[in-house]
Amino acid sequence: VSTSMMPSGSRAVGARMWVIADGWIPPRSSGPQPEMYSHEGVCILNAGEQPARIDLMVYFTDREPSGPYRVVVDPRRSMHLAMNDLVDPEPIPHDADYSVVVDSDVDIVVQHTRVDTRQAELAVSTTIAYPV
Amino acid sequence: VSTSMMPSGSRAVGARMWVIADGWIPPRSSGPQPEMYSHEGVCILNAGEQPARIDLMVYFTDREPSGPYRVVVDPRRSMHLAMNDLVDPEPIPHDADYSVVVDSDVDIVVQHTRVDTRQAELAVSTTIAYPV
Amino acid sequence: VSTSMMPSGSRAVGARMWVIADGWIPPRSSGPQPEMYSHEGVCILNAGEQPARIDLMVYFTDREPSGPYRVVVDPRRSMHLAMNDLVDPEPIPHDADYSVVVDSDVDIVVQHTRVDTRQAELAVSTTIAYPV
Amino acid sequence: VSTSMMPSGSRAVGARMWVIADGWIPPRSSGPQPEMYSHEGVCILNAGEQPARIDLMVYFTDREPSGPYRVVVDPRRSMHLAMNDLVDPEPIPHDADYSVVVDSDVDIVVQHTRVDTRQAELAVSTTIAYPV
Repeated sequence: VSTSMMPSGSRAVGARMWVIADGWIPPRSSGPQPEMYSHEGVCILNAGEQPARIDLMVYFTDREPSGPYRVVVDPRRSMHLAMNDLVDPEPIPHDADYSVVVDSDVDIVVQHTRVDTRQAELAVSTTIAYPV
Repeated sequence: VSTSMMPSGSRAVGARMWVIADGWIPPRSSGPQPEMYSHEGVCILNAGEQPARIDLMVYFTDREPSGPYRVVVDPRRSMHLAMNDLVDPEPIPHDADYSVVVDSDVDIVVQHTRVDTRQAELAVSTTIAYPV
Repeated sequence: VSTSMMPSGSRAVGARMWVIADGWIPPRSSGPQPEMYSHEGVCILNAGEQPARIDLMVYFTDREPSGPYRVVVDPRRSMHLAMNDLVDPEPIPHDADYSVVVDSDVDIVVQHTRVDTRQAELAVSTTIAYPV
Repeated sequence: VSTSMMPSGSRAVGARMWVIADGWIPPRSSGPQPEMYSHEGVCILNAGEQPARIDLMVYFTDREPSGPYRVVVDPRRSMHLAMNDLVDPEPIPHDADYSVVVDSDVDIVVQHTRVDTRQAELAVSTTIAYPV
């Protein structure tokens, strides 16, 4: 780990394409808002020195895919993208099954997390996404 | 990411065989039904242009495997398959340990999620399955 | 998927060595027993035609490893092994951090799940283990 | 599994670099303390015979990375490192999105777990980290 010669902070790591198969935004929230809102996060690390230009394609059960949703993650930055917040080209429907393909022009790492506050006590699930 | 030349929406991604080792359908549900039912989802993305013909074999603790359970996931579609809903060749018993091998004729991505509502406040767990 | 020539039910899949880094058995349980007991499961699929002879080595924070714990998973069987139940060469202490290396003589797939019922409403977490 | 010739307890396994994309330390805890404190664990196994000298770099949304945080995991030991406890070069802020790159000079295995006790009933999520 030659951190003096090449700080780990400056190296792009990961893969350029990632997949999340189980996407589903809970249709309701409970508890103090906005803190305890139900959401799904696509958490992205760009550890490299170049901006990561990222396209997300969203696949559904019974219609054509939506996208690309475009985001840029700056060099040496983490972005925890809430799927709930995407609006262009269209919002992701809540209470609908979907999958996501994440495409980047540089190496990134992607992790998927769902926070479900439909009931009074939250549930959280997470997994590193699948690197293609 | 040459989305203009080859939209990510048209490329098969993943692997053809996936394994889930921890299958277990909770034996009870609580809360408003059908929304809060206890179930296990095998969530499948077929991002390609060909239908995915998929066989699931289910392995148990103390008897021979059951299957194949056959499903087709259309091109460019996500299917969140509830293990609870499988009936042919036989239903998956609840409150019984099992594992699943998912076999496809094209590349897919598989994620496994359990929703457990035996108690008043749900628990959710998820993981990308193991690609063989 | 030539299921007629080689049923997926008869093929060993996976890897021979797997690692779980976050082992921790909750020190208490609540709710109806034995159903709602706090435990950790090492869930193993042996999809092949040979018995899987498996050694588990358990690593701790401040003492030498314990093991090997030996189990056999029969051909075409799933075993959801509760770490709580291991007694030979010694029980795994509760409320103690540990990691597990799972060694098999044939290919298997391993998934790790924790069920925590210390509080009235359970929490569940899971991940496919790391294949070496 | 020639455990007599080469005990699994003496072999370094895993990878030298691991990534966790979804880091977030919950800003509050409830329940009996210190047991039920909200925290994130970076759980590390060093199954080998050499000490693992490990650097963690922490990436944020809107500032330069912090680190390296340096830890040593002794041979044949498991360390469940609480991100909450890191203080040098600076504490990790709570309620702030981050990612972590874990760099080791020998092979290790890393798993990430979040325990969220903001509400009365805990939530737990876990995933094997991404091996670079």
